[in-house]
Amino acid sequence: MAVLLRQYKEGNVSEAQVIAGMQRAGVEDLGFAEVDQARERRQGFPEVIYAAGKTQEQVAAIMASLLSGSRQSVMATRADREMYEFVKARIPEAEYQEAARIIYVRRPTRAVDPSRKILILTAGTSDIPVAEEARLTAELWGNEVVTHYDCGVAGIHRLFAHMRDIEEARVIIVVAGMEGALVSVVGGLTDKPVIAVPTSVGYGASFHGLTALLAMLSSCAAGVSVVNIDNGFGAGVLASKINRLD
Amino acid sequence: MAVLLRQYKEGNVSEAQVIAGMQRAGVEDLGFAEVDQARERRQGFPEVIYAAGKTQEQVAAIMASLLSGSRQSVMATRADREMYEFVKARIPEAEYQEAARIIYVRRPTRAVDPSRKILILTAGTSDIPVAEEARLTAELWGNEVVTHYDCGVAGIHRLFAHMRDIEEARVIIVVAGMEGALVSVVGGLTDKPVIAVPTSVGYGASFHGLTALLAMLSSCAAGVSVVNIDNGFGAGVLASKINRLD
Amino acid sequence: MAVLLRQYKEGNVSEAQVIAGMQRAGVEDLGFAEVDQARERRQGFPEVIYAAGKTQEQVAAIMASLLSGSRQSVMATRADREMYEFVKARIPEAEYQEAARIIYVRRPTRAVDPSRKILILTAGTSDIPVAEEARLTAELWGNEVVTHYDCGVAGIHRLFAHMRDIEEARVIIVVAGMEGALVSVVGGLTDKPVIAVPTSVGYGASFHGLTALLAMLSSCAAGVSVVNIDNGFGAGVLASKINRLD
Amino acid sequence: MAVLLRQYKEGNVSEAQVIAGMQRAGVEDLGFAEVDQARERRQGFPEVIYAAGKTQEQVAAIMASLLSGSRQSVMATRADREMYEFVKARIPEAEYQEAARIIYVRRPTRAVDPSRKILILTAGTSDIPVAEEARLTAELWGNEVVTHYDCGVAGIHRLFAHMRDIEEARVIIVVAGMEGALVSVVGGLTDKPVIAVPTSVGYGASFHGLTALLAMLSSCAAGVSVVNIDNGFGAGVLASKINRLD
Amino acid sequence: MAVLLRQYKEGNVSEAQVIAGMQRAGVEDLGFAEVDQARERRQGFPEVIYAAGKTQEQVAAIMASLLSGSRQSVMATRADREMYEFVKARIPEAEYQEAARIIYVRRPTRAVDPSRKILILTAGTSDIPVAEEARLTAELWGNEVVTHYDCGVAGIHRLFAHMRDIEEARVIIVVAGMEGALVSVVGGLTDKPVIAVPTSVGYGASFHGLTALLAMLSSCAAGVSVVNIDNGFGAGVLASKINRLD
Amino acid sequence: MAVLLRQYKEGNVSEAQVIAGMQRAGVEDLGFAEVDQARERRQGFPEVIYAAGKTQEQVAAIMASLLSGSRQSVMATRADREMYEFVKARIPEAEYQEAARIIYVRRPTRAVDPSRKILILTAGTSDIPVAEEARLTAELWGNEVVTHYDCGVAGIHRLFAHMRDIEEARVIIVVAGMEGALVSVVGGLTDKPVIAVPTSVGYGASFHGLTALLAMLSSCAAGVSVVNIDNGFGAGVLASKINRLD
Amino acid sequence: MAVLLRQYKEGNVSEAQVIAGMQRAGVEDLGFAEVDQARERRQGFPEVIYAAGKTQEQVAAIMASLLSGSRQSVMATRADREMYEFVKARIPEAEYQEAARIIYVRRPTRAVDPSRKILILTAGTSDIPVAEEARLTAELWGNEVVTHYDCGVAGIHRLFAHMRDIEEARVIIVVAGMEGALVSVVGGLTDKPVIAVPTSVGYGASFHGLTALLAMLSSCAAGVSVVNIDNGFGAGVLASKINRLD
Amino acid sequence: MAVLLRQYKEGNVSEAQVIAGMQRAGVEDLGFAEVDQARERRQGFPEVIYAAGKTQEQVAAIMASLLSGSRQSVMATRADREMYEFVKARIPEAEYQEAARIIYVRRPTRAVDPSRKILILTAGTSDIPVAEEARLTAELWGNEVVTHYDCGVAGIHRLFAHMRDIEEARVIIVVAGMEGALVSVVGGLTDKPVIAVPTSVGYGASFHGLTALLAMLSSCAAGVSVVNIDNGFGAGVLASKINRLD
Repeated sequence: MAVLLRQYKEGNVSEAQVIAGMQRAGVEDLGFAEVDQARERRQGFPEVIYAAGKTQEQVAAIMASLLSGSRQSVMATRADREMYEFVKARIPEAEYQEAARIIYVRRPTRAVDPSRKILILTAGTSDIPVAEEARLTAELWGNEVVTHYDCGVAGIHRLFAHMRDIEEARVIIVVAGMEGALVSVVGGLTDKPVIAVPTSVGYGASFHGLTALLAMLSSCAAGVSVVNIDNGFGAGVLASKINRLD
Repeated sequence: MAVLLRQYKEGNVSEAQVIAGMQRAGVEDLGFAEVDQARERRQGFPEVIYAAGKTQEQVAAIMASLLSGSRQSVMATRADREMYEFVKARIPEAEYQEAARIIYVRRPTRAVDPSRKILILTAGTSDIPVAEEARLTAELWGNEVVTHYDCGVAGIHRLFAHMRDIEEARVIIVVAGMEGALVSVVGGLTDKPVIAVPTSVGYGASFHGLTALLAMLSSCAAGVSVVNIDNGFGAGVLASKINRLD
Repeated sequence: MAVLLRQYKEGNVSEAQVIAGMQRAGVEDLGFAEVDQARERRQGFPEVIYAAGKTQEQVAAIMASLLSGSRQSVMATRADREMYEFVKARIPEAEYQEAARIIYVRRPTRAVDPSRKILILTAGTSDIPVAEEARLTAELWGNEVVTHYDCGVAGIHRLFAHMRDIEEARVIIVVAGMEGALVSVVGGLTDKPVIAVPTSVGYGASFHGLTALLAMLSSCAAGVSVVNIDNGFGAGVLASKINRLD
Repeated sequence: MAVLLRQYKEGNVSEAQVIAGMQRAGVEDLGFAEVDQARERRQGFPEVIYAAGKTQEQVAAIMASLLSGSRQSVMATRADREMYEFVKARIPEAEYQEAARIIYVRRPTRAVDPSRKILILTAGTSDIPVAEEARLTAELWGNEVVTHYDCGVAGIHRLFAHMRDIEEARVIIVVAGMEGALVSVVGGLTDKPVIAVPTSVGYGASFHGLTALLAMLSSCAAGVSVVNIDNGFGAGVLASKINRLD
Repeated sequence: MAVLLRQYKEGNVSEAQVIAGMQRAGVEDLGFAEVDQARERRQGFPEVIYAAGKTQEQVAAIMASLLSGSRQSVMATRADREMYEFVKARIPEAEYQEAARIIYVRRPTRAVDPSRKILILTAGTSDIPVAEEARLTAELWGNEVVTHYDCGVAGIHRLFAHMRDIEEARVIIVVAGMEGALVSVVGGLTDKPVIAVPTSVGYGASFHGLTALLAMLSSCAAGVSVVNIDNGFGAGVLASKINRLD
Repeated sequence: MAVLLRQYKEGNVSEAQVIAGMQRAGVEDLGFAEVDQARERRQGFPEVIYAAGKTQEQVAAIMASLLSGSRQSVMATRADREMYEFVKARIPEAEYQEAARIIYVRRPTRAVDPSRKILILTAGTSDIPVAEEARLTAELWGNEVVTHYDCGVAGIHRLFAHMRDIEEARVIIVVAGMEGALVSVVGGLTDKPVIAVPTSVGYGASFHGLTALLAMLSSCAAGVSVVNIDNGFGAGVLASKINRLD
Repeated sequence: MAVLLRQYKEGNVSEAQVIAGMQRAGVEDLGFAEVDQARERRQGFPEVIYAAGKTQEQVAAIMASLLSGSRQSVMATRADREMYEFVKARIPEAEYQEAARIIYVRRPTRAVDPSRKILILTAGTSDIPVAEEARLTAELWGNEVVTHYDCGVAGIHRLFAHMRDIEEARVIIVVAGMEGALVSVVGGLTDKPVIAVPTSVGYGASFHGLTALLAMLSSCAAGVSVVNIDNGFGAGVLASKINRLD
Repeated sequence: MAVLLRQYKEGNVSEAQVIAGMQRAGVEDLGFAEVDQARERRQGFPEVIYAAGKTQEQVAAIMASLLSGSRQSVMATRADREMYEFVKARIPEAEYQEAARIIYVRRPTRAVDPSRKILILTAGTSDIPVAEEARLTAELWGNEVVTHYDCGVAGIHRLFAHMRDIEEARVIIVVAGMEGALVSVVGGLTDKPVIAVPTSVGYGASFHGLTALLAMLSSCAAGVSVVNIDNGFGAGVLASKINRLD
């Protein structure tokens, strides 16, 4: 836009052309969008592809395009091993985290102070894939992550064994299916932000995560917020945004 | 029926008359029903009137009828003070438990061994009316009841302060609204039967108790069962049935 | 913890170290948890693996670990025959109950007085797998179980034929899909605790068990409580807990 | 239309005019509609006003109009006593059935053979208003109606006491709230058509009649059909239609 | 039971033994059940197997058992061709109606007067399998059935073309998915009983038949009743029950 | 913005100031917004206040402000008569349409060609308030509106009597509660755009308009679209937008 | 019908025969239906087959029948490539649009003025199949269509880049899954009719398009209407109907 | 606990007494709880009473108790003016924020660096009470809060006018009812944590906030989390927790 303005000043384009050009050029030229892109680039946030429902060809092509267009890490979530092998044949530096179901290319990023820890807790072992999605997301954004899996409230002593990590964490992600009660207990033990991730683990009255979702939203502990069912990625992004605040 | 049979033996009634009589007389004459009524009378289970949606006149009339027809205690649940005063004017021995919203006439009953305690826990103070409905029901059935109110998981130390009562109880009723997480924690701390009562306490995503109901049904703690929303009476009945088992 | 205290008394550790150690050691050292584990071991409650969504390798590994770590029976619910054969090759003493879809290793347990019978009723033949899950669970816990399958209310004489068993049972489990009406009828015929298990049997307005679940919760018979849809295991655990009460 | 055709034959109107006339005249001239109206008049089906949400003035005006336009009975459902008194002041022959909440003017109708009985059963006393709406509707249509109220399955002997009436009925209406189990039991005892009316009686998981509705639709008894929640009028109409079949 | 009574009269059994025997013998001896079974046998109602979720072996075995135990027709609903071929190899007289997905053995039955016609209408071609299930059920019960498929209200002239059949039918079954509007239109054109069958045809906001179900229950036409989603069999049974009324 | 650009050309502001100014000035200066406001003013679209949940004072104040700020008509929807009287005392030119529950001040607008008629149909008389909201909205926007109320499909001849108006309309709004079947029938009779408005009329399975909403969305007639429950205003706006297209 | 009338005038048929004939002939002879068919033929609206749930044979047969019976374009929606290849072997002129999943035969149609553009926007790339279904439908009806895919509100600058097309469009179709927010933004930027198509894109709380559907219906932008989930065809038809208005 | 330990070291209490004492004393003595209380006191977090469903007497009593027991601010949410006046008469320093419906007593707190701004945006004016609840909560915790109300996406230029505040905020709370689209737009414009608060504003398909809730959870913008419907307090607490992180 600055170029256009200078041309206008030099008399090469008319006033109407500047206004029209700004409209035509659209938002790429709007200040807030440029600034936004610049900030993203500077902070090294990874680009993300939601692979579910995309073909292997599409994922490989988008990933290659993202890698050539920026210097950031790139991840494709909800990808199976077969898709990974297809991508790997085309992008040799691609890696695969099986538990998280994520294909990714890790690139240098601005690390967050490692004393600022993100803690991820799960209620059961079946919640681990969602937790791993959150963990890898946060790590690719440069965060130090601590995890304790399978510490649901049916055996609440398992949770208390991690009391020190709960106290030391800066942000806590709680991943739980079924009735999601772990969120309320953790929310009552800490004054740090708690991000709750309901999972589709369970059967019958669990309604594929809906019960955990509603229970977490109704939690008696204040200061808890909730993301979509199985949305480990979203929790990882939000935890990173909070953890990077200066 | 025995009378009919003897008449038949004496030749006063025909075989066809006995069969027809049994059909006509219906189930009052069937063995299982008679036994059942006898057992109820012997055990002193109270008769119950669900007062919601009934007029003051109807409640007073049904209560008077029940009192004259048996020697048991009688209760009318979900009754307000105004209804009580109407009833009291007609049935002077009627009492009122304001928190439980129950009008009742207490009569002697066969007491359960007082070392067999029913423990009632609530998550919050708003759950108390439902808990009191359960408590009074169980007491009128002759049970010893211990209660601890307002020990929800957002401050879980409040629950642990009652660890000894949890260990000593024979049956535990947990009353909770919102996300109902207290049930899962208690269910994980005891090997006694736990009866969960969801309450309509909460707002928004609590959906008038539906979320607590679904969460309790999805509880990760085994050995928990659930009654209808706000059904303190039902929980009190079930706890009594369990506690009376020899 | 006693060791730590003695070291403290002998001056080998500081006061701060004791407090820190207790926090670090976590809940394993807390009285209630220790007692709890001891009780479980003494009573011979089986360990349970929910096999749905786990790989054959995971189930076999967890089962082997549980067998080496305790002297209790071990069961894996919702397992198909193929998984069983995989496990069997690694754990020769494993058995399979096809109807219940449970792999288990039965070990000696403290038997409950066999006159204390648990009765399991189903409405239809399609409800049998869930009922068998409850039955095997209760039997592995040392209970005597009586079953009558396919006695739904559309032909209510089938139920009355089992009147004596209903009267003699100490706890009754009713397993039913569709509209779940059997629960209300049984609940009206007995003064024993009734545990209702809705099943996902049915189509259309049955909504995979939701209708049976809601109907059972709304039952006009008092003293009925409900577990999650298809949760035969949970009903078996609860019935066992009730049946073992002294 | 016949007039138009004759004019056409006589050459007074053109072919185009006949076709246009038929279009313009619309459906009043269509054979099936005329026949339909004639049939209704001949059979004496009552006209009905759904009073809920209408003003007293509107109900009185519509009722007066219906009375002057036909020789049939007229009813206004879901009307309170205050509305009745307003109507009564303007239409002196109006009567009020308090339990059914119906204002009506009864006129001579073609009676159905009184040996063809419609039986109406309710599960509880709270279901009576809906049952009375069905009963009065059927009676105004000339049917003989038998009723037994409060014979729900929690005390199933109450139902069996009416076995003879069940066997003798030609059509059975079952009115029930909560879990609606009475429908399945009755449906299994008879080979006559059963019309199920769910009521909004109940609380919590009854969801204002939705649970009873879904349970009735999922009934294990074949030959049962269901009308809308609290729709006693619709059940009365349908039973009348069935009962009048020659 | 008569035998027992005579033995009692002859002094061979005690009074207590008669009462106990009646309890033990259960409901088979109760008058209403015996009469019921006799009536069913006399009327030739077919026995039905719900094949969905059963193995080929189970269906063949139950069908063989039903055939040897009665002289009625037998049908297995929701069966695919493969299951039919398995059954056919064991029961050569078995036939298959592909559109209705029913395996059946047709046996002589008491025919209903053929002037009493059951009319079955569908909104679209996708509703035909459900309609065929109703048709075959009604035919096996001895009814004359007329069908008109694909006359939904989006082209309402298709319905009016069948006006005469609508007028002449004694009972009308309307099968429709999506929004189920055909039911309201037909209900307004006839004074005969209308049985509505919602189907799971449709997508998105049709919610697998739930929308059609709720719409039919809310129909503005009186005298309409509804069966479960896709329950052609139930509609056929009910229509037969109505059509056989004398 | 043009001013800023000229200043820049004249050297009075820097390039950075122009960019910053554009950001600061925000959207008021963006071309599309300016054009949009201009267009609205030119077309005479009325301003609208949703009065539900606002106080009388708030509605009067906002209405006065809108009247002074533009030359358009102004309407306040969902207002009762009491609110109107409050407003009338402050804004004497305010009028009230009781059936539509709208307070409005009518001002000259650019009329749409009166041969372009919007037709509004309702299924019942209870749907009239919503229809009147649509009608008044469309009329204040300068449209010619034709209405036919109470022509639901239970008496479908009432609809056919208006066939000519259906054929001549340019846009059709169909307002219906309960099962909303009128929409499908009308949608099948016309090739003009049909806007469906579900209303909260009905009870039980009507679920306050949800059933009508879902049924309309599932309509078998193509070319139908749906607005929110009871949203007569939205339908009126959309019909006006369509009708004004050149 | 004209033939019948002339025969009547000539005395060859009686008055009764004319009336009967009109009833028997049904609606094909009714003026409005004839006119309707004529209009459709004249305007060249394509015939449509909903292929989901139909066999390859059925689709090919219906398509062949439609092609021989009219001169219009014909389309079969929701068809996969395998079905296309089957059809292609029988109908060589058939074409396939893979993204839209539509088999079609394009025939000459009356083109809409190309300056009347229909704009189709999607929020994401996963919404494209539904958008393509709308596009091809509209194009086969002779409309000029402009599309911009993947301009969801999470990067709202992508939308603003198409401001000119938004301003110039006559009708706008917005296709979006997840939370469907694009509809509200577009609805606020234009005074043209906006047709919203929710898609089943998303997971968890998106509930297969239900959340987008409800959000679009609740949109704060007036003048938006909604079609069924994934119903690109319906949106294309409605947009065409609006765009063809003179 | 330290006291007990010292007594133990000094030999005044036995080892068993220490363990028992720790169990008896319960959680008050557990390290994490003590630390937690200390931290809360130091940070000046206000105590909160949820006044809905409590009597005036209860609220006044709890508030007085909290004020005497700590030096923190105290707030009672969801309180009407009448309740405030009752409280004010007993606690003269109580203040009332009418829009937020909060009674509070403000006390000195540790202020957060005022350059760390919390931004609160609402979509409409009806969302203001919920936003004010969030604002007052955050302010009482010592935060600097900026608010912009009524900038919903139907007029998206209103949002862009606040672009600078969006860029400068450290945490953003977005309060919106209806379809909640504002959240997605804001989430796409910022890399700061966004807390979404759905409100019960809207009608029909808004389902009292459920649609906004689900839409926000399904938001296409990453890094957004959601609290319960109308839970302005919870959002204020969470924003404060994030804003205080060092």
